[in-house]
Amino acid sequence: MKPIQAGLLGAGTVGSGVLNVLKRNQEEIKRRAGRGIEITMVADLDTARAQALAGPGVQVVKDARAVIANPEIDIVIELIGGYGIAKQLVMEAIDAGKHVVTANKALLAVHGTEIFAAAHRRGVMVAFEAAVAGGIPIIKALREGLTANSIEWIAGIINGTTNFILSEMRDKGLDFDAALKDAQRLGYAEADPTFDIEGVDAAHKATIMSAIAFGIPVQFDRAHVEGITKLAAQDIRYAEQLGYRIKLLGITKRTPKGVELRVHPSLVPAKRLIANVEGAMNAVMVQGDAVGTTLYYGKGAGSEPTASSVIADLVDITRLHTADAAHRVPHLAFQPDQMSDAPVLPMSEVVTSYYLRLRVADQAGVLAKVTGLLAAAGISIDAMLQRPAGEAQEAGDAKAVPQTDLIILTHNVREGTMNEVITQMQGLPTVLAPIVRIRKEELA
Amino acid sequence: MKPIQAGLLGAGTVGSGVLNVLKRNQEEIKRRAGRGIEITMVADLDTARAQALAGPGVQVVKDARAVIANPEIDIVIELIGGYGIAKQLVMEAIDAGKHVVTANKALLAVHGTEIFAAAHRRGVMVAFEAAVAGGIPIIKALREGLTANSIEWIAGIINGTTNFILSEMRDKGLDFDAALKDAQRLGYAEADPTFDIEGVDAAHKATIMSAIAFGIPVQFDRAHVEGITKLAAQDIRYAEQLGYRIKLLGITKRTPKGVELRVHPSLVPAKRLIANVEGAMNAVMVQGDAVGTTLYYGKGAGSEPTASSVIADLVDITRLHTADAAHRVPHLAFQPDQMSDAPVLPMSEVVTSYYLRLRVADQAGVLAKVTGLLAAAGISIDAMLQRPAGEAQEAGDAKAVPQTDLIILTHNVREGTMNEVITQMQGLPTVLAPIVRIRKEELA
Repeated sequence: MKPIQAGLLGAGTVGSGVLNVLKRNQEEIKRRAGRGIEITMVADLDTARAQALAGPGVQVVKDARAVIANPEIDIVIELIGGYGIAKQLVMEAIDAGKHVVTANKALLAVHGTEIFAAAHRRGVMVAFEAAVAGGIPIIKALREGLTANSIEWIAGIINGTTNFILSEMRDKGLDFDAALKDAQRLGYAEADPTFDIEGVDAAHKATIMSAIAFGIPVQFDRAHVEGITKLAAQDIRYAEQLGYRIKLLGITKRTPKGVELRVHPSLVPAKRLIANVEGAMNAVMVQGDAVGTTLYYGKGAGSEPTASSVIADLVDITRLHTADAAHRVPHLAFQPDQMSDAPVLPMSEVVTSYYLRLRVADQAGVLAKVTGLLAAAGISIDAMLQRPAGEAQEAGDAKAVPQTDLIILTHNVREGTMNEVITQMQGLPTVLAPIVRIRKEELA
Repeated sequence: MKPIQAGLLGAGTVGSGVLNVLKRNQEEIKRRAGRGIEITMVADLDTARAQALAGPGVQVVKDARAVIANPEIDIVIELIGGYGIAKQLVMEAIDAGKHVVTANKALLAVHGTEIFAAAHRRGVMVAFEAAVAGGIPIIKALREGLTANSIEWIAGIINGTTNFILSEMRDKGLDFDAALKDAQRLGYAEADPTFDIEGVDAAHKATIMSAIAFGIPVQFDRAHVEGITKLAAQDIRYAEQLGYRIKLLGITKRTPKGVELRVHPSLVPAKRLIANVEGAMNAVMVQGDAVGTTLYYGKGAGSEPTASSVIADLVDITRLHTADAAHRVPHLAFQPDQMSDAPVLPMSEVVTSYYLRLRVADQAGVLAKVTGLLAAAGISIDAMLQRPAGEAQEAGDAKAVPQTDLIILTHNVREGTMNEVITQMQGLPTVLAPIVRIRKEELA
């Protein structure tokens, strides 16, 4: 049988990984797929570089539309990124009846509904294992491996840059800015790291996993997105003393009222496996009603790890394109006419627990006032820690009033209620600085 | 479209889990699969119990062959276990043109070649996600998620009973016998725990993973199988002091000479994620040339976790049975005519590193003799520890000769060479007890 032919749009970091791995392992991949898989055409603005990467047998063009127009091409691999031209090209490839493989999480989290609907109408597949958690086959696990389950929640470290920064902050006691500089110097963070450090990249991925887990449309605009830029070294240290680590988690959870979809720094018990995922590694926990807790770990980015997922999608398409379209794996795990309309909840309706740090005047009655406000709102306390403010190692702390840090871990409470109590606490004259609030997930 | 119909052979622990989960989540599973999946017939010797489990609408019979003979049944689920009647029934189901789902690792590790060949000839699928690591979708990850990779090695905690026992030994300083009793009392070990504690169950699973990873036939008879019954509490403690934990690992590795396939207790660096997998949980590390290190974690046994994998197979079959047979996922990941004849290496050809514990006379020159033998064989030392023999907490240690424990970690060496050196060491008059040897895996 003649090889299945793919065309590559974008020969950057991941694209070159796809070319290299497909070349290096072509025999082994063919022995698995039952059919050769060849990239016969590449579109990239830098044609000379792309030709050198792809080798002499491959046609290299500047115009991506020439790839889509080629009737020999069965699969179009989109590795351009972003919402702009990438979206147009993906839609055109679908219109042309091509299967599409993409690593573009931003595109799918924002325009997935339109793209999957078009693919469904045209009877083609849009595969995107590489869009979430790089080389970890988490889309496959969710969409196929755990189909027996009612998924209860997912919590993942799905951005390597921020996990690297948080690991540096913890290991070396660094503040965020210093750790970011380290990450940039070592190539773990880009020159403009906004999408990573503000949680946007993680939210794209969480949005996609949420849709697959619960059969809801992708709704990036409903996700709560909060990055790690405001984290202080002292909170990482206090968390440690309480038996927790701070990770940037992408979380989605099924509740009776709707679906939680949120990205923010979270305290996680240090004994959980996921709390021990260090550096730029990724890990995703999935809780299913039948299987219980499962976890998937690996490299979340990089040329060849991401290429590993792109090529797995090529093999899947090679296998599945002979199945009748109604029985292929649905794009979002559920059949398109069987999606749920469960709403994504506003953050005020999320129920979780909290770490609070209050800089207070070191005088009698302060603790009673603070805990009184919590009690009045029905919020119970899980643990507490009081530390001399000096331990905060902040410059210019020598104030007239003796100060102390009060760290409180709460049990579960609705975020709206927590917000009200924080406002009340902040109004106390003995609370001397903005209250720090970090959410806490037990993941049990 | 009318539901796909499955018949269940064996309504024991896993069978009842399959019935329960399929009932509880039937709507959600149908929304994913695009078609209902129903168990319409159950065979079990205890028909009354089976009928109560399956509910009134399900036909319950004593004779498994009545299920296979039913022309309405598309899929036969074999949950009887063992090599005997289970093998006959699986072969008969294949002959009858039924797809088969099984959790029977022993059967596949020993008779897989015959079974898969028959299924291939008949054009049916034999699915077995539940046979390895319970609810963890590791077969899917290996066969589909990592198809881009040349797999380098796999190392897994794939037997929950032994991992529970080892966790107890470490946490409570227990010896093997006491920890086994705990495990039996708590239901983590069977009354006859031989298959688990002697490593046989883990070797069945490692055999299956090895075949899938490297495209070789299942060869359980070539696996090196060593259990945990000889482990002493003191070795767990010494390992800890050197920064390692002891786990029963199923390991398979590709080498230029052939494939390593072995199950034995292994020292693992304590900082590795897999070293922190506690209790009855399972985890499998897979190293691929493109993706790097990945890890998959979850419950390796139990009613509903195992049912999760059985049902995922049912959904897969519902999807894939419409694909032409040549393009379905091959049973052992590689097309049947593309298997490798790489040999499984004898244990003497395995290259790894070692933990050695020598009880020696506490006198001058002993260490020089021992390390001299290692040096002469070209074995370099990674770390060493000397401890008073009293720390071993053994009864009746008050001997005439002062004794000491010498613990040596080596770098990599061929096992045949290591065996020769151990024999030489054992011959030294200053070595006073049988030398303890445990293999060490860095998993880096």
